[in-house]
Amino acid sequence: MKLDVEKLSSTSNTIYIADLGCAVGPNAFDAMQDVVHFIQQKYTLQCPQSNTKLQFLVLFNDQPSNDFNTLFTSLPRERPYYAAGVPGSFHRRLFPESSIHFVHCSYALHWLSKVPEELLDKNCGAWNKGRIHYTNAPNEVVQAYASQFAKDMEEFLCARAMEIVTGGMMTIIMPGLPNEMPYSQLAASLMYDFMASTFMDMANEGLVSEDEVDSFNLPIYTPSPAEMASVVEKNGHFSIEMLELTNPASLVDGPVDIKAWVIHVRAAMEGMFIKHFSTDIIDEMFDRLTKKLFMFTEQVESGYKDRTQLLVVLIRK
Amino acid sequence: MKLDVEKLSSTSNTIYIADLGCAVGPNAFDAMQDVVHFIQQKYTLQCPQSNTKLQFLVLFNDQPSNDFNTLFTSLPRERPYYAAGVPGSFHRRLFPESSIHFVHCSYALHWLSKVPEELLDKNCGAWNKGRIHYTNAPNEVVQAYASQFAKDMEEFLCARAMEIVTGGMMTIIMPGLPNEMPYSQLAASLMYDFMASTFMDMANEGLVSEDEVDSFNLPIYTPSPAEMASVVEKNGHFSIEMLELTNPASLVDGPVDIKAWVIHVRAAMEGMFIKHFSTDIIDEMFDRLTKKLFMFTEQVESGYKDRTQLLVVLIRK
Repeated sequence: MKLDVEKLSSTSNTIYIADLGCAVGPNAFDAMQDVVHFIQQKYTLQCPQSNTKLQFLVLFNDQPSNDFNTLFTSLPRERPYYAAGVPGSFHRRLFPESSIHFVHCSYALHWLSKVPEELLDKNCGAWNKGRIHYTNAPNEVVQAYASQFAKDMEEFLCARAMEIVTGGMMTIIMPGLPNEMPYSQLAASLMYDFMASTFMDMANEGLVSEDEVDSFNLPIYTPSPAEMASVVEKNGHFSIEMLELTNPASLVDGPVDIKAWVIHVRAAMEGMFIKHFSTDIIDEMFDRLTKKLFMFTEQVESGYKDRTQLLVVLIRK
Repeated sequence: MKLDVEKLSSTSNTIYIADLGCAVGPNAFDAMQDVVHFIQQKYTLQCPQSNTKLQFLVLFNDQPSNDFNTLFTSLPRERPYYAAGVPGSFHRRLFPESSIHFVHCSYALHWLSKVPEELLDKNCGAWNKGRIHYTNAPNEVVQAYASQFAKDMEEFLCARAMEIVTGGMMTIIMPGLPNEMPYSQLAASLMYDFMASTFMDMANEGLVSEDEVDSFNLPIYTPSPAEMASVVEKNGHFSIEMLELTNPASLVDGPVDIKAWVIHVRAAMEGMFIKHFSTDIIDEMFDRLTKKLFMFTEQVESGYKDRTQLLVVLIRK
């Protein structure tokens, strides 16, 4: 990939790297180690005669509510970079102008900054009654999600365009939808659909109210490569160096562990459910959800094995 | 003060500021706001015609065990700088080479990196039996503390000399001892002396063991201006722009609030006591200590009102 490290290091021996949506490690640490080695190797190839020792400052970013204490106490003792934490939403500015050389953002940009407001308006075609996501929803709902994603990405790219130096690189990894695949075929969609029907079952039994379900929506979006290309082109500040769908390697082999999958999803989403529903129905919901998924093991397996992620590599023009 | 902001900003519009030993705010936020305004004003005076807008990244540093979550969630929403947290001991390297323009370190350097080892050696003249500090201790004990402070400062200054750019500034504020004053006259000394005698009383009553008291020592040191000047000169990388003793303004007026003072000291030191003594004797110790201090109100008042702090301003050569 055409990262010109010689040029990046021409004004300073320190390379500034940002990891956006780092959570508490350890994935972030592995990724940052890889990024540092990648840049180091590029530099050795480009400047084999150089006596300059590149240095790296990694800025680990996540929301202010992230557990930075855990992140900081679990930082590897031996690491090829200096480390800092930066609290804040990556939909806004986080760093000074032209101060960052490399940005990495893994499994974070599918989280929308908020639920599209139209979904809660009963007088609007996008009112998302009986669902908690845009899976199998009317076109208006899908459009509301898609346009929120486009708005979020535009804010994200504008902020990064200010922060990343000319020639700097940004890598984005996130769930991706093959251009021609209907969204409902994804494993995640099956899960969200089953969540909604579980909540509706519970509403019928009076365990939650129908209003509670109607007013809850997951702020998650899975774009296709074509959509991603379009938001990047509209923004205009980055050239696309790579844009492809891949299979997350670790997930391809063996049968799907449905229980582990539910635990993983629960860990990521429980906070949102607790904010909206009463705490004591959450166990019940996940129990019922697991049972439903087991009843459709074949569908789950097939959706899960086709799971794809989007890998985007951008260069700041 | 001769901070050449024009020169500092000649290679980058971003000024990097480090606050070492920041704790969880809000003092750190006030200090950083002041530092940013100071640099900004200097710049406006030096370069009145400039259209460049300086930007600031403040790197808040403290030990990895510091509560960065609280720091990050209490950061002022409106602030004239970008903010990051940096976990690690300031006796070692924290930042890349020549990457910092201004360092501020307030009430942190009086904490030694460790208790001098000689104090625990029963066969050594510096064995600190029956005391928890060098107040009223034999000269060997005082020397052991003084040389640990000198070692710590040398490590601190060496690390900072690597990190601060030529012409960059460092301000240090810490408790200070007037050159000619005996250490035992300080209010803090009175407190440490009373702590030791309280512990010894409790040892006599069998509430703690004598060994526990003998093996406990506070890693705190209060240097004189002459000592500070000597460690800076020995290091050789900084010129002394200012070195003076001042009265901490907020403490000069009104009678001493002994209870509030003990609460303050307890908050800072409790962790160390709990690590060494059993938790349930701590309340008892601080109750007894408060009573002792009340019995010597006059001495406490006079020591407290003479309290002085050391203000050191250094420029990286």
